[in-house]
Amino acid sequence: MKKEVIVLKDLLGTNDQVAAGIRRQVESLGILAVNLLSSPGSGKTTLLEQLVDMLKGRYKLAVIEGDIETERDAERIRAKGVQAWQITTGGACHLEAKMIGKVLPAIPADVDFLFIENVGNLVCPASFDLGERIRCVLLSTPEGDDKPKKYPKAFLTAHCLILTKMDLAGLLDFDPEKARQEALSINPKLELFSTSAVDGRGLEEVAGYLVRSLEQLRSGRA
Amino acid sequence: MKKEVIVLKDLLGTNDQVAAGIRRQVESLGILAVNLLSSPGSGKTTLLEQLVDMLKGRYKLAVIEGDIETERDAERIRAKGVQAWQITTGGACHLEAKMIGKVLPAIPADVDFLFIENVGNLVCPASFDLGERIRCVLLSTPEGDDKPKKYPKAFLTAHCLILTKMDLAGLLDFDPEKARQEALSINPKLELFSTSAVDGRGLEEVAGYLVRSLEQLRSGRA
Repeated sequence: MKKEVIVLKDLLGTNDQVAAGIRRQVESLGILAVNLLSSPGSGKTTLLEQLVDMLKGRYKLAVIEGDIETERDAERIRAKGVQAWQITTGGACHLEAKMIGKVLPAIPADVDFLFIENVGNLVCPASFDLGERIRCVLLSTPEGDDKPKKYPKAFLTAHCLILTKMDLAGLLDFDPEKARQEALSINPKLELFSTSAVDGRGLEEVAGYLVRSLEQLRSGRA
Repeated sequence: MKKEVIVLKDLLGTNDQVAAGIRRQVESLGILAVNLLSSPGSGKTTLLEQLVDMLKGRYKLAVIEGDIETERDAERIRAKGVQAWQITTGGACHLEAKMIGKVLPAIPADVDFLFIENVGNLVCPASFDLGERIRCVLLSTPEGDDKPKKYPKAFLTAHCLILTKMDLAGLLDFDPEKARQEALSINPKLELFSTSAVDGRGLEEVAGYLVRSLEQLRSGRA
């Protein structure tokens, strides 16, 4: 038991060092890195497709897609005319900073936003810093309003919580206020958004938050 | 990198040995152990509540609930008048056989069904045998029909696939036939069920499959 913990700590130690290096490199170029984290099927790729549509006219974007198998998500982003790199982990349940480090040299230095979509898993990715400045956790209404306390680390380590599929909330006995309050009880600093890919609600607010975060990053550098 | 792999193999080796011991012990008593595995919010606890309602008049049941934090799921099962043990993993992303082994001495020997609800995670639990005879993977329609190939190990190692929230399929652009065919391309032996906790479809079929599996286990022992 003790050995497992030590090995895990070492792995995280190395990961944190690699992540810190990525953050320095990316932020020195004025690039905002955003890590999207959620259960499978919560709508990460769909949210990204819509953010890409809203931002691509004004900003230069790059996307890293993490999946255990398949290039499906990267193909969906490429279909929007945005460069996307697929990392297939071949079984691993989360992205690690060293995986991002391998892709980084290929990403143009004049990018504004670097989106990283993690493997669909509400547990393990929360323990791995990828060098991002903003971590967004998504919670879709069909998953239930009781999930923050059952999977606390994802909510504790995120900067923003994006409720997705809000058009279904009424059908599903999902209480958005309960989900928000439970998430805030874990992490009172969370920025909160309620979105739907079907009716478009909340998407402009998410895009606006990311643009403000980019501006803050760049004004901090100036 | 090599060291990580060796450590993981050792962990799984030990887990497999513990799991084999659990399976021998449980099956020698004629108990059918069932491991339920899925993403967070796919409906594992709701399915269990409904199976409990259907089976508890005729059979004696016990339930082990795996969660990272909270006793919420065990409380839901206890409210049905069935004994439930909550394992809170305190951060770990899956149940392991040794966790089941610790609970096992408390479970009455005259139980017919032992249900184990795993941590909500479509990735990591697939690698850990818990000594079950039947592994069921749940896929809820809001997660999308493209998930089997993205998370293949859960589908490869399961005996049955239970589509849940089928009442929502029409609203969600979810093609059940695509999901089934993709899962069968990974594992042609999967038993397939389509269920809804709202309209009750498919639940009798799941209960029937479990009862048949119990009878097969017991006739094999006779």
